[in-house]
Amino acid sequence: MDVGFLRKTFGDRFVEDSSIAALYVHDASFVEGESNVFGVVFPETEGEVVELVRWAIKHKVPLFPQGSATSLSGNAAATARGLVVSFERMTKVEIDPGDGVAVVGPGVRIEELNVELARYGFFFPVDPGSMRSATIGGAIANGAGGMRGAKYGTVKDWVLGLRVVTGRGDVLKVGCKTFKCRNGYDLVRLFVGSEGTLGLITEAVLKLAPVPESAVAVLAYYDDVEPLVEDVVRVRASRIWPLFAEFLDAPTAAVVGLEERDTLFLGVDVNTGAEERVLKRLQSIVRGRVASVAVGWSEAMKLLEPRRRLYSAQVHLAQRGGGVLVIEDVAVPISKLPDAVRGLKKLAEKYGVPLLLGGHVGDGNLHPATWFRKEEGPGKAEKFIREMAELVVGLGGTVSAEHGVGTLKKDLIALELGDAVLTYMRELKKVFDPYNILNPGKIA
Amino acid sequence: MDVGFLRKTFGDRFVEDSSIAALYVHDASFVEGESNVFGVVFPETEGEVVELVRWAIKHKVPLFPQGSATSLSGNAAATARGLVVSFERMTKVEIDPGDGVAVVGPGVRIEELNVELARYGFFFPVDPGSMRSATIGGAIANGAGGMRGAKYGTVKDWVLGLRVVTGRGDVLKVGCKTFKCRNGYDLVRLFVGSEGTLGLITEAVLKLAPVPESAVAVLAYYDDVEPLVEDVVRVRASRIWPLFAEFLDAPTAAVVGLEERDTLFLGVDVNTGAEERVLKRLQSIVRGRVASVAVGWSEAMKLLEPRRRLYSAQVHLAQRGGGVLVIEDVAVPISKLPDAVRGLKKLAEKYGVPLLLGGHVGDGNLHPATWFRKEEGPGKAEKFIREMAELVVGLGGTVSAEHGVGTLKKDLIALELGDAVLTYMRELKKVFDPYNILNPGKIA
Repeated sequence: MDVGFLRKTFGDRFVEDSSIAALYVHDASFVEGESNVFGVVFPETEGEVVELVRWAIKHKVPLFPQGSATSLSGNAAATARGLVVSFERMTKVEIDPGDGVAVVGPGVRIEELNVELARYGFFFPVDPGSMRSATIGGAIANGAGGMRGAKYGTVKDWVLGLRVVTGRGDVLKVGCKTFKCRNGYDLVRLFVGSEGTLGLITEAVLKLAPVPESAVAVLAYYDDVEPLVEDVVRVRASRIWPLFAEFLDAPTAAVVGLEERDTLFLGVDVNTGAEERVLKRLQSIVRGRVASVAVGWSEAMKLLEPRRRLYSAQVHLAQRGGGVLVIEDVAVPISKLPDAVRGLKKLAEKYGVPLLLGGHVGDGNLHPATWFRKEEGPGKAEKFIREMAELVVGLGGTVSAEHGVGTLKKDLIALELGDAVLTYMRELKKVFDPYNILNPGKIA
Repeated sequence: MDVGFLRKTFGDRFVEDSSIAALYVHDASFVEGESNVFGVVFPETEGEVVELVRWAIKHKVPLFPQGSATSLSGNAAATARGLVVSFERMTKVEIDPGDGVAVVGPGVRIEELNVELARYGFFFPVDPGSMRSATIGGAIANGAGGMRGAKYGTVKDWVLGLRVVTGRGDVLKVGCKTFKCRNGYDLVRLFVGSEGTLGLITEAVLKLAPVPESAVAVLAYYDDVEPLVEDVVRVRASRIWPLFAEFLDAPTAAVVGLEERDTLFLGVDVNTGAEERVLKRLQSIVRGRVASVAVGWSEAMKLLEPRRRLYSAQVHLAQRGGGVLVIEDVAVPISKLPDAVRGLKKLAEKYGVPLLLGGHVGDGNLHPATWFRKEEGPGKAEKFIREMAELVVGLGGTVSAEHGVGTLKKDLIALELGDAVLTYMRELKKVFDPYNILNPGKIA
């Protein structure tokens, strides 16, 4: 295969050293990448990306696009002999506070963008657990959500326009720079969440939100998950739209340093001056024992910190047990959350697997975590996950709320979608990537 | 052609009488439909829709889906000899306040749904000008926006799942019943705004929003549009996210019964108890002359009423002048609105066409309206619109912010999108409707 082109075009931004390339072939999931890739390239311009795709078409080389590889479903793993394309050098940031938009390169980290935006009183509200390292390009490609999703939804709600290089080597400018447009089919949202299988994102126009004036939050402990979920429903029914409504079950709360009790983190954005009244309303609705309260935007964000520690706590716990961590990502209609929690605990017992439970109650989204010892293999965990998928689909839910499909969920989404939908998805893939060079083997 | 199937399947829900069918061939735009259609059918079940599509494939009969036909770009006009498919009989409404979702048939009117939802403290926040007659199915197919779009976006942000019959006769269940899912490509949003060209919507799962506790609003008059737009930008920069920020230019304000001045309608949802403080903040930011204020959710909505009268006022005015009304739908980045307004006024002078200007400042969306006498024909208006499109695209804007493409914008979106994007759109159409029987001649 002709790597001359790569050497010439990318110079020292083409890394051939297999020991370095090996660092880029996997993501945060337990999917093991293909160790024998051709290397990693770091494009800096859209033109380079176009040339790269044309070269890949010619030589039938799979391209594996990557932001900071924090995906949990194998979305960003290089799973075949090909080339990793890291977007970490494409980090343009242009903020237009008057228009309320930012034009950014795919390699910009969410956290870095928010540091810049804070100067103008704006923020990009989607906050996946990995937001300190996750890139905008990766978040878009994965359709990421986060803890403030109860109010702010997911990435799809905050992308106005994209520049994308398809698997045919075409540059498409889709969407717009205005807050809305209806100029034909919504290709923006077709690329959002497509996990790099339809096109490589080279630029994004993001919609920004004003940082709310203020917020209040409570952390409350419960003896059972049922009243916890009911309380979130009652808050929404009281014409209060939560900013976040996060949950940890008792064992998981203990892991992040809280009491060993089912724990609710409930936040609401409010007007300055309305803090006391809304806090009182929350306290009158919440029947759990309120262990701490927060007043003010930064304080409310701080109250969430134990919840944000969940991922690293899970990693440490799994490692201590010599285990490989598996973080799942299911959602059910909010009212079905108690059934889902009870069902998951029964399944964990049945298969004898460890289980930590936390998630976004406001979205009905749970992240069950389990782990297995490498020498035992994932057998038991896989059986647990399969039955978990059947459980949540039976409850009217989804097997992939915000982490995407990658390689790990390919079998599971079939349970939920049916063959016809998958057939159409495969045909869409062929329109944008007829040579199957863009992140092959993922999604459909 | 075999209409026996239609008679047998739909009985008196197949209307063959050409004088009645003629009422269904056009929408609210000036596009004249094909008077010689085969008739109108009113399906009641998804099964009937599937049979209908299979029959249409066999006989190569175009199907023209329709809600209440309030489209302004010819989206819902029957523009060839075919069959109109009216969804007005599919009016199921199932509300689940605990889960915060509603499952509805495509024929449900937005206003009717909101009357039901009010009992639970929820609402479907997208409010196109036509919301009293517009159906959910039509709003989804057109990707509708509305006056509360400054805060709540457009229909795409409020549809969780869909059941759709494609042009191949397949039933696809896409999306989910939960607040988020990432189960493969986002087919939900591919159907949203596809104007019935990819599939016929038979059911939708909608996300509901809690009705805000309270709101405040001001109506302010300006001598010029520039400070008006600047004030909206300054509000957003003050960490206030407007619920609505609507605009009428001086002649248009007079038409709806206000002073003949550039007029801003600015509303903000607030916590109960915070009304006075936020109102004071708005009054300190707004430099126009505040003519009225509103406190409370219903009162804020009432303050918008003159703005909501715009469409019928335009219709009457055009009719009085013996004219045919044309309502356009452009958007530019917010900061470019003054340039757009000035440019449009110059163009109206240049071509000697009447011009009324109003729109959604919060979204950068203007709805320039003009009219022409039937006997003169649309020549001058079309030239004006063409140059208007060049103007807004030059300002980084879009020729279709929320009304869609239909037949009237097909040439104009090419200015904005480029050939490559249109090529991909045509290929997508072929995946879902290879026989070109679904609303042919629209979009791409």
